[in-house]
Amino acid sequence: MAPRIALPTTFKRFSSTFTAKPIPSKSHFHAPIPDSAFPKGYVLTGIHAGVKKKPDALDLALILSTTSRPAAAAGCFTRNAFKAAPVIVSEEILNNSGGRVRAVVVNSGCANAVTGSDGMSDAWAMVRATDALLDSVEGEAEQTQTQTNSTLVMSTGVIGQRLPIDRILSGIASQSAKASNISSLGSNFAAWERAARAFMTTDTFPKLRARAFTIRGKEYRIAGMDKGAGMLHPNMGPPRPPSTGPLHATLLGCILTDAAVSPRSLQSALTYAIDKSFNSISVDGDMSTNDTILVLANGAAAEGEKEIDEATDVEAYEVFKKELTEFSIDLAKLIVRDGEGATKFITVTVQGAPTYADAHKVASRISTSALVKTAIYGEDANWGRILAATGSISLSTPFIPSRVNVSFVPSDGTSPLALLVNGEPQKVDEARASEVVSAEDFEIKVELGLGEESAQYWTCDFSYEYVRINGDYRT
Amino acid sequence: MAPRIALPTTFKRFSSTFTAKPIPSKSHFHAPIPDSAFPKGYVLTGIHAGVKKKPDALDLALILSTTSRPAAAAGCFTRNAFKAAPVIVSEEILNNSGGRVRAVVVNSGCANAVTGSDGMSDAWAMVRATDALLDSVEGEAEQTQTQTNSTLVMSTGVIGQRLPIDRILSGIASQSAKASNISSLGSNFAAWERAARAFMTTDTFPKLRARAFTIRGKEYRIAGMDKGAGMLHPNMGPPRPPSTGPLHATLLGCILTDAAVSPRSLQSALTYAIDKSFNSISVDGDMSTNDTILVLANGAAAEGEKEIDEATDVEAYEVFKKELTEFSIDLAKLIVRDGEGATKFITVTVQGAPTYADAHKVASRISTSALVKTAIYGEDANWGRILAATGSISLSTPFIPSRVNVSFVPSDGTSPLALLVNGEPQKVDEARASEVVSAEDFEIKVELGLGEESAQYWTCDFSYEYVRINGDYRT
Repeated sequence: MAPRIALPTTFKRFSSTFTAKPIPSKSHFHAPIPDSAFPKGYVLTGIHAGVKKKPDALDLALILSTTSRPAAAAGCFTRNAFKAAPVIVSEEILNNSGGRVRAVVVNSGCANAVTGSDGMSDAWAMVRATDALLDSVEGEAEQTQTQTNSTLVMSTGVIGQRLPIDRILSGIASQSAKASNISSLGSNFAAWERAARAFMTTDTFPKLRARAFTIRGKEYRIAGMDKGAGMLHPNMGPPRPPSTGPLHATLLGCILTDAAVSPRSLQSALTYAIDKSFNSISVDGDMSTNDTILVLANGAAAEGEKEIDEATDVEAYEVFKKELTEFSIDLAKLIVRDGEGATKFITVTVQGAPTYADAHKVASRISTSALVKTAIYGEDANWGRILAATGSISLSTPFIPSRVNVSFVPSDGTSPLALLVNGEPQKVDEARASEVVSAEDFEIKVELGLGEESAQYWTCDFSYEYVRINGDYRT
Repeated sequence: MAPRIALPTTFKRFSSTFTAKPIPSKSHFHAPIPDSAFPKGYVLTGIHAGVKKKPDALDLALILSTTSRPAAAAGCFTRNAFKAAPVIVSEEILNNSGGRVRAVVVNSGCANAVTGSDGMSDAWAMVRATDALLDSVEGEAEQTQTQTNSTLVMSTGVIGQRLPIDRILSGIASQSAKASNISSLGSNFAAWERAARAFMTTDTFPKLRARAFTIRGKEYRIAGMDKGAGMLHPNMGPPRPPSTGPLHATLLGCILTDAAVSPRSLQSALTYAIDKSFNSISVDGDMSTNDTILVLANGAAAEGEKEIDEATDVEAYEVFKKELTEFSIDLAKLIVRDGEGATKFITVTVQGAPTYADAHKVASRISTSALVKTAIYGEDANWGRILAATGSISLSTPFIPSRVNVSFVPSDGTSPLALLVNGEPQKVDEARASEVVSAEDFEIKVELGLGEESAQYWTCDFSYEYVRINGDYRT
């Protein structure tokens, strides 16, 4: 988990010497955000509780809604059979709370996964400690006694290790609003940024975004943070046991809005948004036991407005769903951008599929192909590997090779590079090709010619650095 | 495609320097075989026709049966939707010849894949040229005029490039038995070895094996060669369009026996053997457009014996099927051993599954996990990644985490290392753990506790060298 410093890496091999491309700095993807851009009615912080060894490394985030009424809450969780304790606990709380909570507590550095009954009681202890903190916090919430289990919990880090629960609990207890230390709960950019930093593991920059949107002429704000880096190919579902589907990711995300949305509609909007965003990214095709995306809607900016609900006001619901989806895509892309060892950001677009599921399957296979990803790292326009990956999927209707088109679309708006047209390889201008693939961003477009459905996926390349990071992760 | 020389590779990164483990030499996996161990009634050669640039690189293999009756033949082929021309041609010949052929022609260096109608006529031209060679060859075959399309064809190499067909055709024509040049057709070890070398692409050693077996008190021989290296995770089926299943591999193999087996039973025995062998290995989880395994049974050692058939003599058939399966596993393991950049040979055993398909799916997922494979490269006993990969599969009956066991079994016969017992992480003796994982070979054993079925998979690790080979494959 060494820092990714953009110096060329020289690989000496007997007679020959070759140079690994430096991992480009990603720091410019994090920039200050005006305090006014963040949703109202939330206080946050990120502190060093002592889960991570480095004394200054933030490893505990607290996110509290200060509205008198608990916020509507929804979540999507990993479908891995070995769900971590915090996933099980958060699912249970969401199911039993009628989708209303007041807080989210997050730790990084330890996943609290495969930790048996001890891990379960640790996760519950984090919930109760944050519930207690809620009671002590100044603000409207103070008037009403907090219901039990008002807090959702997330953890990320190494699997199979016990949390240093005492340090976490005293870290939570230390955060009464009365405390005036620099890390105390706040609602300005600094507070949101500290919380975002406390999500990070092998991430190289905090992932924090905010935007505004308007419904029924009223302006609302949505903001959120997430983390990723490795073990990343999410496929999350609502808090229910899944029927099918492969699953991947160490992904934590928390999205907060001051709009008022009914818990039921918040869940359906999130479930839709996740499929188009976090379930459409891949770093390494591997899946974790912890991935969780939570969304809270506290209505702090919705005085006198009734809750948005798909049954009573489809139009408002559709606007909110669209906003949530676009915001989720922004957050999801940040994770690919910062994928372990990533030097490229690749958009994979599959068009002309008989069904969306077919398009999604093909885009996923291309996005996880080790040969495609090493070719991209090598800046090699190797369409043969893309085609082989495409053809390895069985679609709901068979491929017709003579209808398949593959092209690279540059990020600079210049004309696409056709590699395969109607199944026939094109004479590729290699100079132009290497121009396109040497850019940090480009798009791989595959047209199947079998229907009208399309899907988009975002992935990165496969570098020496990925092997280095994961070859000595624990050492 | 540089040679893999076992020198340590030094990676300089700003202040820190780290060393990549050298790729161990694999040459000792190839050794001379007595001429008498090879099946009777075959002549072979491998020559440099000029597909590969290096003047001494063998790139064309010819395998001829010299028995008066054509050999029974069977094949399993990639299920990739974009089948290469030689795959389509060989499937058609097998289907139209009643499963009887006299020869196999193979080129390496160019896959003749995604080459349109030109590629089809090139593949057919290779078949006809070899048919013509058959007529000119001395031996029993000379008496009988060869039926048309008596030759099966295989190609491996880069996708989307046209074969240098003229060089290949003159290479074939140059091989009449009368020619006395060193590369002419023969039946001794040197001839078999030349053929095996002509299969190679990024392989570091020729893969050739031979063994004997006895049916009804009569001794027969089986020998064969294959090639692999990368784009390797086979899932092949008999010459029919598949119903389902992901598919992976640049795998070519040819197995020859002097037993007499009916074409139909040869196909069913091969289809069974492939699933337990070549369809149970993975190098990088990627699939090619060309993978093909062919088997010929010419009956040269079965004078007066009737053909083995599952309908008329189940017992003999079962013995043959078992021999073919074990031999196929030997050949398949050689490919993993020589996987691109491989420093480890890992056996993944999944037991206690409700069905064989479940066990095979879990073993496949573990064997293709980038995180598991980089951990193995890093010699890190990271069972958490194994568990996450396991849990990402949806089984026909749900996982019960408290029944899952994970252990590492050393190759030296010492006691296994228990990592997870009944879902609980074990206190791992790290010294002992690194002892086990620092060996070139070890076994990952996962017990699901859900049934009686088990499956085995063979895979390798994910190294810097894999990224290097595939990051500049075409350059």
